[in-house]
Amino acid sequence: MTRVTLEGLLNPSSVAILGATDDIRRVGARVMRYMNEGGFEGPVYPINPKRDVVQGKQAYPSISDIPGTADLVIMAIPATAVAQALHDSAAKGAKAAVVFSSGFAEMGEDGAAMQADLQAAAREAGVRLLGPNCLGCASVANGAMATFTSNFLDGLPTLGSVAVVSQSGAFGAHLYSLARARGIGLSYWVTTGNEVDISIAECIDYLVDRPEVSTLVVYAEGINDPEGLRNALAKARDAHKPVIMLKVGRTEAGAEAAKSHTASLAVSDAVCDALFKQYGVYRADTTDEMMDVAYACQMGVFPTNRNLAILSVSGGVGVQMADCGTKHGFDIPPLSEEKQQHIRELLPFAAVRNPVDVTAMAIDNPEHYLTPVFDAVLNDPETSSVGVFFTPGQGSEEFTDLMLAGLERMRAELPHKAASINIIMPDAMKARYEAAGYTVFDTSERAIASLAALATVSEGFRRGEGDAPPALPASAEAVPAEATSEVAAKQVLASVGIPVVREVLAESADAAAAAAAEIGGPVVLKIASPDIQHKTEIGGVMVGVEGVDDVRAGYETLIARAAGKAPTARIEGVVVCEMVSGGVETVIGVNMDPTFGPVVMFGLGGIFVEVLKDVTFRLAPFGIDEAHRMIREIKSFHVLTGARGGPKADLDALAETLVRVSVFAAANADRLESLDINPYLALPEGGVALDALIVPKGT
Amino acid sequence: MTRVTLEGLLNPSSVAILGATDDIRRVGARVMRYMNEGGFEGPVYPINPKRDVVQGKQAYPSISDIPGTADLVIMAIPATAVAQALHDSAAKGAKAAVVFSSGFAEMGEDGAAMQADLQAAAREAGVRLLGPNCLGCASVANGAMATFTSNFLDGLPTLGSVAVVSQSGAFGAHLYSLARARGIGLSYWVTTGNEVDISIAECIDYLVDRPEVSTLVVYAEGINDPEGLRNALAKARDAHKPVIMLKVGRTEAGAEAAKSHTASLAVSDAVCDALFKQYGVYRADTTDEMMDVAYACQMGVFPTNRNLAILSVSGGVGVQMADCGTKHGFDIPPLSEEKQQHIRELLPFAAVRNPVDVTAMAIDNPEHYLTPVFDAVLNDPETSSVGVFFTPGQGSEEFTDLMLAGLERMRAELPHKAASINIIMPDAMKARYEAAGYTVFDTSERAIASLAALATVSEGFRRGEGDAPPALPASAEAVPAEATSEVAAKQVLASVGIPVVREVLAESADAAAAAAAEIGGPVVLKIASPDIQHKTEIGGVMVGVEGVDDVRAGYETLIARAAGKAPTARIEGVVVCEMVSGGVETVIGVNMDPTFGPVVMFGLGGIFVEVLKDVTFRLAPFGIDEAHRMIREIKSFHVLTGARGGPKADLDALAETLVRVSVFAAANADRLESLDINPYLALPEGGVALDALIVPKGT
Repeated sequence: MTRVTLEGLLNPSSVAILGATDDIRRVGARVMRYMNEGGFEGPVYPINPKRDVVQGKQAYPSISDIPGTADLVIMAIPATAVAQALHDSAAKGAKAAVVFSSGFAEMGEDGAAMQADLQAAAREAGVRLLGPNCLGCASVANGAMATFTSNFLDGLPTLGSVAVVSQSGAFGAHLYSLARARGIGLSYWVTTGNEVDISIAECIDYLVDRPEVSTLVVYAEGINDPEGLRNALAKARDAHKPVIMLKVGRTEAGAEAAKSHTASLAVSDAVCDALFKQYGVYRADTTDEMMDVAYACQMGVFPTNRNLAILSVSGGVGVQMADCGTKHGFDIPPLSEEKQQHIRELLPFAAVRNPVDVTAMAIDNPEHYLTPVFDAVLNDPETSSVGVFFTPGQGSEEFTDLMLAGLERMRAELPHKAASINIIMPDAMKARYEAAGYTVFDTSERAIASLAALATVSEGFRRGEGDAPPALPASAEAVPAEATSEVAAKQVLASVGIPVVREVLAESADAAAAAAAEIGGPVVLKIASPDIQHKTEIGGVMVGVEGVDDVRAGYETLIARAAGKAPTARIEGVVVCEMVSGGVETVIGVNMDPTFGPVVMFGLGGIFVEVLKDVTFRLAPFGIDEAHRMIREIKSFHVLTGARGGPKADLDALAETLVRVSVFAAANADRLESLDINPYLALPEGGVALDALIVPKGT
Repeated sequence: MTRVTLEGLLNPSSVAILGATDDIRRVGARVMRYMNEGGFEGPVYPINPKRDVVQGKQAYPSISDIPGTADLVIMAIPATAVAQALHDSAAKGAKAAVVFSSGFAEMGEDGAAMQADLQAAAREAGVRLLGPNCLGCASVANGAMATFTSNFLDGLPTLGSVAVVSQSGAFGAHLYSLARARGIGLSYWVTTGNEVDISIAECIDYLVDRPEVSTLVVYAEGINDPEGLRNALAKARDAHKPVIMLKVGRTEAGAEAAKSHTASLAVSDAVCDALFKQYGVYRADTTDEMMDVAYACQMGVFPTNRNLAILSVSGGVGVQMADCGTKHGFDIPPLSEEKQQHIRELLPFAAVRNPVDVTAMAIDNPEHYLTPVFDAVLNDPETSSVGVFFTPGQGSEEFTDLMLAGLERMRAELPHKAASINIIMPDAMKARYEAAGYTVFDTSERAIASLAALATVSEGFRRGEGDAPPALPASAEAVPAEATSEVAAKQVLASVGIPVVREVLAESADAAAAAAAEIGGPVVLKIASPDIQHKTEIGGVMVGVEGVDDVRAGYETLIARAAGKAPTARIEGVVVCEMVSGGVETVIGVNMDPTFGPVVMFGLGGIFVEVLKDVTFRLAPFGIDEAHRMIREIKSFHVLTGARGGPKADLDALAETLVRVSVFAAANADRLESLDINPYLALPEGGVALDALIVPKGT
């Protein structure tokens, strides 16, 4: 089905309300009231066969009776009446419908069947459908309030640039009330419910294009349109419109069954996290964080580095802000010697380095002491964020005038610099800072956290720039149709350009001895069988075997052990393998996510993966910059840079391997079940896959 | 100096104000106004040589002229006048003084000298002194408002059971305003400033005894009275009065210089953390958390387990709350089959397990459907905490009546059960829940986090019960005066009852051979010298040496290597040591904290300590339960319970060793610089110190 724009839903010119009525306890009355009060300029047609007038407007017995067309038809009617209504609406030119009714897929099998019928009816009618089982939507600038949520009883939305998209009606309504209580204006508010037609993804896609939207707040319980979501998120990122998401089910992570050994850690929540990272989505851990970050983002100022300047009227709060800044990934560089000297001359007992503690002297005489210090701290080109702590004594008109003068000078000179003020002050004063583009919080931690969030969002905007995944090399083999041996798996990897260990499959003791001589030095001998995955468990590996006689003997020993311990396994021979030492053992895996397809996992081997679960994930494919971020993201990263005097790993080679794995996995998404390179030895120069397992789909 | 109660400061019968005046911009006017408006019933004497009347009250030219006595003298006068004023106040029976003036130790060397003089003057006068450089204090029930903070201009405190104690005036005032904005009533509010006499510790000690105090909120920038603080915190814990603390300087942690190898991780912030854990102090990470936890604690209901029940009108929010509960250490056990069946019969489409999602049907008809479900979830004796999500539609009087009836039934039946409601509703409705002892938050995460905090506080109350550290065994040797060899260090540990490896110091090759024969099996040979601390670096260790000839040869080799690599070292011979294998390598250390004395560190060896910094600390001495908590606290704890199929460690023996180390360290606090047992091998049965280093103080 070709996608039709959501214009009819979110920017309609005319609206009909099926089930409009007067009794405000009822759904059809509330939506009618909100439509009447929302400032919508086009015609609104109440449809009610039992009344001539509803809430002061002429009513019509059916949608077919309205004099004009209705872009949007709001259906406050029983579930069973919806299909016919869609048909009738289409005849009146309807482009979209909102279906509030519950009783569909959320109500068991019968409901699911009804939902399938509804989907078919909407498609047949050519009407875009929001819902069912949703609370509808509100387009604030347009004035169309296509919702019956009781949360609007406290007041309709005030216009702002934040758009809220929520799958859940109840939580969407909760977000609405929180935004209202915190003075955050909205441009759009959409709940998608059962998503029989319109998904979260399509809403994001539409809203990113709207000039009145600066910031998107999104709540998803499941992802119904993964490809659409990826595209919409990429579009938002490229448009520099922050997307702030909350995704539930974080701790159910472990429930997903393991598919293969290392990839067993790849679970849906980790995949979501990967998606968000790759597309620069800000993942909020809590509703409060979501609201704070949205509040900050709507100011439209995104710092370009992670340097923080702190100005406080209390030394202790300055240290608190420094602690908090460090925790949130800020550097807190000292002010220049010149600036420090300048402040010291004005305020002999001030802390001048950073944090700057201005002492009571500055506050008692702000014109003479505080203003120049404030200017010096604000106009430091090295720092992209400024956190400020004042006490309520600094909440006066005169003081605000002084401070805003400084903040406005800063905005002119350093347009990308964000500042957040921690002060408890009257709303009117707070509004003045906000109007000038500065956030105000009542605790220093939220002020600093919001600045850090802006820096994270800013970094997210730059994700993906010039970082396209490379093409699969022409030499690349495909995932084989059948399970293969370790040797064959490594040959496939080698064809993709992934370095693998030198090895030979020997089918006789003589061949093994010859191979060992060819490789030179001590070798590793491993039993080769597509049926034996855990070789060490049957004593199928011998390390450091050297010399013709020992290699021959080793060959015979392994064959004998396999015959004894795994009598039904097909034995292909013994792999004679170069001994590689040094380097850091890493694990690279690919797992198939049922929603997003191939997901690449990376971590260090041994306890790091098995005990500490210190792994990270990305959706395939990805580019070299993303691979580097992935490597740097694990907690044990410093092991790769030579912690404990150990070897330093070649991070470029490691990143290149991750990229190649991702490209290979994406190209083989329909053939691959899982892939494990365990270990991939990250060497001081280059690296090498020592063991590999490729599991084709359906094997 | 004998400590005098703070009664004169915090519960005075009469007050004099030096520097009282009429101009409200001035300190002496604000404090006078607050005293006048605070409801204080005793006499208030304004002292002002230039006026007869100040703010409607008769003024006196000096403190000596007042007709009666003044328990508390508030000094809104220049720093230079304070010493004389203390002397004069003492003559009028003053028990305490509040000194606002700054210009003391915070202002460099001259100020520090003045501060020392002030301290001497207060002691000589026998007047307890709050400050200097503080914002004073407020005793809400008594009505004495001995503060000039401009934060009180918005309104004086309303009476409640939370007491705020803050070293910083500015941050204390900020906490005041936050409490006020959040509707949290206060019993006391104290800022201690430069703490020339009265410390945070003494304030806590006094306030814990006051019946009008339920909960203490404490902000410290440094600890001036460590012993007093430990005693006060123990008293608060035993009185089941929660102490919620915020301590700054978290990320300056690394700045403290390392004293010895493993103990180099022991830093002041970690010590604070240890203190808080041991005394059941709730350490707040943020100001918001501090306020939320205080708000919850004042309800006086502390859950006795970590089981959480969740009831939501939205499935998605129910899952959010489950995620959040899990993150905060809650179990979310299923309701009994019986209860599930009961709910299912009422609400066929509800989620019944836990979280319970009641669906819209329950909300549309709460009397018939919601009330019985609410009761079923609340009155589950298995769960000690309940989190509830409602939407604003549930903010009506009728609905609140219904819900409170259920909550009151629960309180009667299960008095230790806490519930927190996430709903955005009018303040009047919120107040009804609060009056019944239930918290209301506008986001589900804060509701759940506050319940988890109550459970943590409840666990904190039980800390220390029946867990006294044992006495030092009679056999225990003291820390030697001089640096000793590894063998001597282990002998000292053995005398304390800590298991050490079997070993013999051999002074000849013959003696070494005899020792090896006596020990039996392969042995470890180690060079023995008080001057060689890192033996492996000079090749001073040989492992798995067996047989008379090899042991002899090994002896000679080590002596020769030492002579070559460390020619000036005193060589005592070679230690012949039993080979112990298996088990898990742990590290146990003691470091001397300049404030709190000996601190015991514990972690796993190798990368866990060196790369992952996965260690934990406790102040010495401590009992066996604390040692068990310590062991279970490290992130890598599962390595000790056989993760990766490794050996399981004897945790009882390990805990016993930690306790003995702590008792030994405490008994030798004045002789010990540091102690390292690295490694202590935690075996499947018992354990053994393989290497030890004791550094006496001043060596």
